[in-house]
Amino acid sequence: MTQNIYDDDGFFAGYSRLPRSVEGLDGAPEWPNLRAMLPDLRGRNVVDLGCGFGWFCRWAREAGAARVLGLDVSENMLARARTGTHDAAIEYRREDLERLDLPVEAFDLAYSSLTLHYLANLDGMMRTVHRALVPGGALVFSAEHPIYTAPREPGFRVAQDGRKTWPLDRYLAEGPRSTDWLAKGVVKQHRTVGTYLNMLIGLGFTIEHVEEWGPTPAQIATHPEWDGERERPAFLLVKARK
Amino acid sequence: MTQNIYDDDGFFAGYSRLPRSVEGLDGAPEWPNLRAMLPDLRGRNVVDLGCGFGWFCRWAREAGAARVLGLDVSENMLARARTGTHDAAIEYRREDLERLDLPVEAFDLAYSSLTLHYLANLDGMMRTVHRALVPGGALVFSAEHPIYTAPREPGFRVAQDGRKTWPLDRYLAEGPRSTDWLAKGVVKQHRTVGTYLNMLIGLGFTIEHVEEWGPTPAQIATHPEWDGERERPAFLLVKARK
Repeated sequence: MTQNIYDDDGFFAGYSRLPRSVEGLDGAPEWPNLRAMLPDLRGRNVVDLGCGFGWFCRWAREAGAARVLGLDVSENMLARARTGTHDAAIEYRREDLERLDLPVEAFDLAYSSLTLHYLANLDGMMRTVHRALVPGGALVFSAEHPIYTAPREPGFRVAQDGRKTWPLDRYLAEGPRSTDWLAKGVVKQHRTVGTYLNMLIGLGFTIEHVEEWGPTPAQIATHPEWDGERERPAFLLVKARK
Repeated sequence: MTQNIYDDDGFFAGYSRLPRSVEGLDGAPEWPNLRAMLPDLRGRNVVDLGCGFGWFCRWAREAGAARVLGLDVSENMLARARTGTHDAAIEYRREDLERLDLPVEAFDLAYSSLTLHYLANLDGMMRTVHRALVPGGALVFSAEHPIYTAPREPGFRVAQDGRKTWPLDRYLAEGPRSTDWLAKGVVKQHRTVGTYLNMLIGLGFTIEHVEEWGPTPAQIATHPEWDGERERPAFLLVKARK
């Protein structure tokens, strides 16, 4: 079973207070970049892998999607998603993404926001996703950037002159990483950029866009606490086509 | 004009003593990985962008290539390449790769080893290379990895317990980097992995393989001085198809 940290009460309480939980997509600074990678959704079928509170599912419907399937392993997240949704064309379903089963050629877009780095069996899920997309269908996802997941001690070091560096190590040592973020011992799976991309290519996807995301200088100006966020990318954003 | 550090006498003397200069391809630990990305060269036309001493040009002929064009901006390198080559099917030519002109659909393979990170106008060169490849032709290159080119102070930091970290910063700040490697003030161009890949995709290439290279544990065992080289990738290896 995939780690289900979102059903840890302390973690969930902390997660629920994040800007992206309170404000939705507009509270996620990488959202404009992800949105720009999306195809036209009008009349399309969408699956959201790790749908959380359902913000993207509802947005996809507003953008014209015909049907949206939101999948998540967390009962906490799904309960909140259902409470906030009044739309019969959106279905939420509890799923362990590492054991995912989906109908063949049923979706035009598979979307995933900051979920894939929790999955050990990503290859199996991606195989299912590829099969579930129609020919020409798109996969758009964000994940924590490998530079972010790699280090033994993931936190900026601040020099006496105030300059920040990110102490990168273990980049080529793929595998689990235990970190303390909102709760003790949250386990993420570190894999390199190359591994993400070659996995998709090997399954028959064509890579269409690769973005190593950090906030813009304008975003940092309005969020001084993000100072340093351009020293290393926080997220990896990918668009691929079946 | 592209920086031509290889015609700096001090730099060239230092470069000429590197294992990859003395031993050729077998002195380059990333060569087995690059070689595995190459198509069958029998009867094919090859262009080597930044051919240096001509090691790859000669290898390509041994692998069956019909004709090989080796391009380099350095007179020093080309003189050495010509001295070491006795093969009328290999042509060496002095070229500023940033102002490259090549015939249309004339090559089956464009190859480049550790050259592209010196080029400011990479987009222009890649446009020329794409046009110069036959449909289905391959581009295979290595470059210094963006994690390697980014930092203000590119060198491992060693903690008291001996652990090495790479002080990553300025990853998202693309542009020139001045480093002291074999000579003072060698200028490299830092660009992100995303920028390399999106440039190729935008020109019509299909990405076939992306490798973030570090030596294997076995290679490190025979070269103890490479300890730490798996903490961050040194090279980016890419295969793309027209």
